[in-house]
Amino acid sequence: MTLVDRWLLPDGVEELLPAQAAQVESLRRKLLDLYQRWGYELVVPPLMEYTESLLVGLGGDIDLLTFRVTDQLTGRLMGLRADITPQAARIDAHSLNREGPVRLCYAGSVLHTRPKKPLASRSPIQLGAELYGDNSQASDLEIICLMLETLRVAGLENITLDTGHVAVYRAVVDAAQLDAEQEARYFDILQRKGVAELESFITDLAPAERVADQLRGLNALHGGSEVLAKGRELFAELPAAIDAIASLEKLQSQLTARIPSLSFYFDLAELRGFHYHTGLVFSALVSEHGQAVASGGRYDDIGEVFGRARPATGFSIDLKSLLNLVAPTPPPPGIFAPYNDSLSQWQAVQALRDAGERVVSGLPGQAPAEDCDRQLVEQNGQWQVQPLV
Amino acid sequence: MTLVDRWLLPDGVEELLPAQAAQVESLRRKLLDLYQRWGYELVVPPLMEYTESLLVGLGGDIDLLTFRVTDQLTGRLMGLRADITPQAARIDAHSLNREGPVRLCYAGSVLHTRPKKPLASRSPIQLGAELYGDNSQASDLEIICLMLETLRVAGLENITLDTGHVAVYRAVVDAAQLDAEQEARYFDILQRKGVAELESFITDLAPAERVADQLRGLNALHGGSEVLAKGRELFAELPAAIDAIASLEKLQSQLTARIPSLSFYFDLAELRGFHYHTGLVFSALVSEHGQAVASGGRYDDIGEVFGRARPATGFSIDLKSLLNLVAPTPPPPGIFAPYNDSLSQWQAVQALRDAGERVVSGLPGQAPAEDCDRQLVEQNGQWQVQPLV
Repeated sequence: MTLVDRWLLPDGVEELLPAQAAQVESLRRKLLDLYQRWGYELVVPPLMEYTESLLVGLGGDIDLLTFRVTDQLTGRLMGLRADITPQAARIDAHSLNREGPVRLCYAGSVLHTRPKKPLASRSPIQLGAELYGDNSQASDLEIICLMLETLRVAGLENITLDTGHVAVYRAVVDAAQLDAEQEARYFDILQRKGVAELESFITDLAPAERVADQLRGLNALHGGSEVLAKGRELFAELPAAIDAIASLEKLQSQLTARIPSLSFYFDLAELRGFHYHTGLVFSALVSEHGQAVASGGRYDDIGEVFGRARPATGFSIDLKSLLNLVAPTPPPPGIFAPYNDSLSQWQAVQALRDAGERVVSGLPGQAPAEDCDRQLVEQNGQWQVQPLV
Repeated sequence: MTLVDRWLLPDGVEELLPAQAAQVESLRRKLLDLYQRWGYELVVPPLMEYTESLLVGLGGDIDLLTFRVTDQLTGRLMGLRADITPQAARIDAHSLNREGPVRLCYAGSVLHTRPKKPLASRSPIQLGAELYGDNSQASDLEIICLMLETLRVAGLENITLDTGHVAVYRAVVDAAQLDAEQEARYFDILQRKGVAELESFITDLAPAERVADQLRGLNALHGGSEVLAKGRELFAELPAAIDAIASLEKLQSQLTARIPSLSFYFDLAELRGFHYHTGLVFSALVSEHGQAVASGGRYDDIGEVFGRARPATGFSIDLKSLLNLVAPTPPPPGIFAPYNDSLSQWQAVQALRDAGERVVSGLPGQAPAEDCDRQLVEQNGQWQVQPLV
């Protein structure tokens, strides 16, 4: 390795230089303050845990995304977290072990062995909120409103909410009596909305015509509100699917009342990557951007492996991927104090800093810093702030 | 692995529950704001890098502390950072590549394969500040003052500053003409202040009497200002050692003028763990605590491996280890809004949150949250905040 590439960072691993770091820090604070005003308590789960607690009960996607290291103290495998949601669920189920609703939020780095999507970061800064202990639609509504408020606070406009419901998929798979292998293949096809593959799958399966229509129809049920009407026809004899569609209709009417400007997109085949969702799933898209900037859903079973099954719903965002979408933070003004080792200058500088001013102490021979608009000057034995011209 | 220990965290890996997380977050913000007022720019280095850039030019200690994983995209080894200081040096030397003084600060998690000290965390939250591009004592003084101000802002009192200077050790080793193996043995003995081992080492070496006195004397030179006077005698013919002692004397007088309440402790054999320091080294002790709560020093050579040697000095602290020393953050007051799915209640709740209030939305059947002191009540068609009794 030569000198020149010694400092090259691995693909998808970024460092944030001052301008970006200030933006991320400002947004992080605004959002954690928002979650606090909504009654969400901050927790800080660890960067690594034993793989047994980090990965148990989750699907294979997160397993593949997780880096592993050996614990030198015990010889056991530890994983570096690829997602904070399961850690928050463990904290709710075990560490806090409270009765009734619990609201938690978090902000921290996660690591992925490979990018989740092309060009995605392998070291996102995940920020999210989770609501445990309530299985009513009121908590789904609250979490979605908080996600939308997150984007509003970040300065994003023209939001489209993309929603689906895992129960529709579940009902179709049950009605078609797919075995585990067939289900895995169908799941995979839906994830990619593969039309040719789906036809080949249905030919192999040779189900009743109505079931074939449902398997085929689910793959195509994405679009505006008309999707829900079509779903009511296509899944008329599947009560669980009809209940799920009814809950999406109710959600739309409640959200429209609260946020009239919100656009909707329905995708009944949306299943989300990490396999742990059990009910409503949702994501938010910004018109100019295309990709989802925030996503979440209901995952009622996840705490069970820690000894306490709890209803749960939540969402998360990646602060780094928001960076290109939000307005830059203007650099703070500053006062330059030319090098002077007198005690009186030190005291004047400290008084200004205590009053909230940013003061850059000059070092021997240093010219005024470029990012300062004023300077500290001694006049008649007094230190005074003057414009820097 | 049974259900019961699935959630046990590895030794030295902690999670922060709401009360502690709020304390850490509050302290993190106060300190980053302090560094900003002093002109230090925030950077966010990545959690992992190729080992070549993460470990090059550093001593063996940090190598042993660093977890390694294989990059699945390239097959190359990556390290999980065990220290942020070398990353900041890389950013200054390469990524920013500015002329003149550069001030950077950072806050982030690091991971250690094993505890650095008995009972230490293996996942500290490291927060620090670094000043590049100036080799005058003015920058050492600034960094020490900022470290002491860090502790004052954290609410810590009765601070003792423990200082040493690597040049004294260097001068003694050079005068004794130790080879690499002998130096490693002597370094190790000094780290543990081993008296019997030192005598055995000197017997093996059989140096001139004056050199033996110096090797022996350095190991014992720790205490109050009298240490500096003794050092001036013992190292009289070693100009580099005398210069280092003079700079410690000057530092003491400057710091005493600025912070009259500060206590001093000198340890001329203090070399600090990570082997990359080249000049002044220092740490801060809190009387009630015993162990160092913050430490740092000068490390002028570190940027060289990234193509640009720059003078550098800085310090860091572990936010988690400060937790037991600082006053808890009182929980914020809150308003409970009993479950009600009307639009008017939603609007009233949002207006209160926009005004900065913390409002917990009740879910169906939920009793008022324990951490709320007021509630939202509808009276004559108006939502009003009333005390919760």
